[in-house]
Amino acid sequence: MKNLCVVLVGTRNPLNVGAVARAMSNFGAMELRAVRPYEKAWREAKSAVGAGELLARAKEFADLAAAVADCSLVVGTTAVGNREMKHPLRGLEDGARLIGKRMATGRVAVLFGSEKWGLSNEDLSYCHWLMRIPTRVEHRSMNLGQAAAVVMYELGRGGSKGSKGSKGGKGDKGDKGEEGLVGSVRLKANASARRQEFAEMEAVERIGEALLEALRKSGYIAARGEATAEEKLRRMLRRFSMEAADAEVLLGMVRKILWKLERE
Amino acid sequence: MKNLCVVLVGTRNPLNVGAVARAMSNFGAMELRAVRPYEKAWREAKSAVGAGELLARAKEFADLAAAVADCSLVVGTTAVGNREMKHPLRGLEDGARLIGKRMATGRVAVLFGSEKWGLSNEDLSYCHWLMRIPTRVEHRSMNLGQAAAVVMYELGRGGSKGSKGSKGGKGDKGDKGEEGLVGSVRLKANASARRQEFAEMEAVERIGEALLEALRKSGYIAARGEATAEEKLRRMLRRFSMEAADAEVLLGMVRKILWKLERE
Repeated sequence: MKNLCVVLVGTRNPLNVGAVARAMSNFGAMELRAVRPYEKAWREAKSAVGAGELLARAKEFADLAAAVADCSLVVGTTAVGNREMKHPLRGLEDGARLIGKRMATGRVAVLFGSEKWGLSNEDLSYCHWLMRIPTRVEHRSMNLGQAAAVVMYELGRGGSKGSKGSKGGKGDKGDKGEEGLVGSVRLKANASARRQEFAEMEAVERIGEALLEALRKSGYIAARGEATAEEKLRRMLRRFSMEAADAEVLLGMVRKILWKLERE
Repeated sequence: MKNLCVVLVGTRNPLNVGAVARAMSNFGAMELRAVRPYEKAWREAKSAVGAGELLARAKEFADLAAAVADCSLVVGTTAVGNREMKHPLRGLEDGARLIGKRMATGRVAVLFGSEKWGLSNEDLSYCHWLMRIPTRVEHRSMNLGQAAAVVMYELGRGGSKGSKGSKGGKGDKGDKGEEGLVGSVRLKANASARRQEFAEMEAVERIGEALLEALRKSGYIAARGEATAEEKLRRMLRRFSMEAADAEVLLGMVRKILWKLERE
């Protein structure tokens, strides 16, 4: 679990921050990060009696991109499912299994949104896929501290063992089966058995920025639709599940194009 | 999950009562019972905004025997393990699987102790076995609401599928493998395929009382050691995992002996 980061986005209640930290510690996840936490809540939680080392070491970030910059997989948690079906949705068991595999080679971020709103669409655009705890349709929404406890438990357990593929629900569109990708196509390409390393989000984000700039410069993006285009682009790049080496090459290509565009 | 009762023993904090109720509802367990709850906490929790039907219907009991009287299996939860090794201890996955099987034929109670002390030795004497959430040795003790969420999740999931036997830790003494018992010996004896029904705790408790009285009358139990003897007896009777019909016969026997003793 040492490659796991739990990222709280916009958490409002200090008791919830404390509860998430406690569940993490119970199951051996020790790295907590917070994006735009309510200042007061964050300070209270960090100074609470018995907050312990985990909370003392917890870091605060101004934006989500910075919080997940060193991660190679970013997974959002949701109670409701894939509202707009832009992301693959996995059940907790299958999701935990994939996360477990990824943690063997790189850092993984698991995101929890605010108590009131969950993760925003912009937050979601930083995610590779979403994971849902299988609560009842009649009462889906969980308490934040309890959701974190269930997710930490399942990650500690290692997810479903021997289960085949994703059992995601209706929202399971665009799920290309990362496992298959990793297991066949990519490993064949790397038949020399070198251990693949996925690109960290910082590298992917740089590609996105350069590409966006290039698209802007080339008139592909109208000024009006820029925010939407940025989100779409971000999601697309994450769907690629790029390896680190590929990301480097791609960034070089895009930068070259951009350089050319800027000289026109 | 309709055959599941969650029993809170001596809970002190209304927020925890509410959190347990919420996790139950998330995963479809709808029957909550409380034994000796802190009056104020219980009232506050029941009247909380959004407490809902589950809490409104929750019942209060003066003692644990009454709270589990209609259950055929009583399972205690513990963070620490089997302190004095008097009970079989199961991991959550295996425990949840066994509970799932039992819920098909009868009511099962899952007990959570008070925030501060957990379940007392007397409480434990009403349990058939104990179940432990696999938290880290360095930080075993969980928040009550979070522990309930993890247990409800695992019960909803149906426990470990296809796992073999108990993987309990050091405290796994006296674990006779209930599954084996049920699967082979008992089903063979009932080869005519009638569905076995386990005795409800009320029936077992009556046997215990009659037997205790008989032992007292017969001079087996010294006045000094009575409390200990009662606990030992209770544990023993629960280890038998009696069927309902057997319990009836046994009660008849013990009562007959007692009647004889009283006439001497």
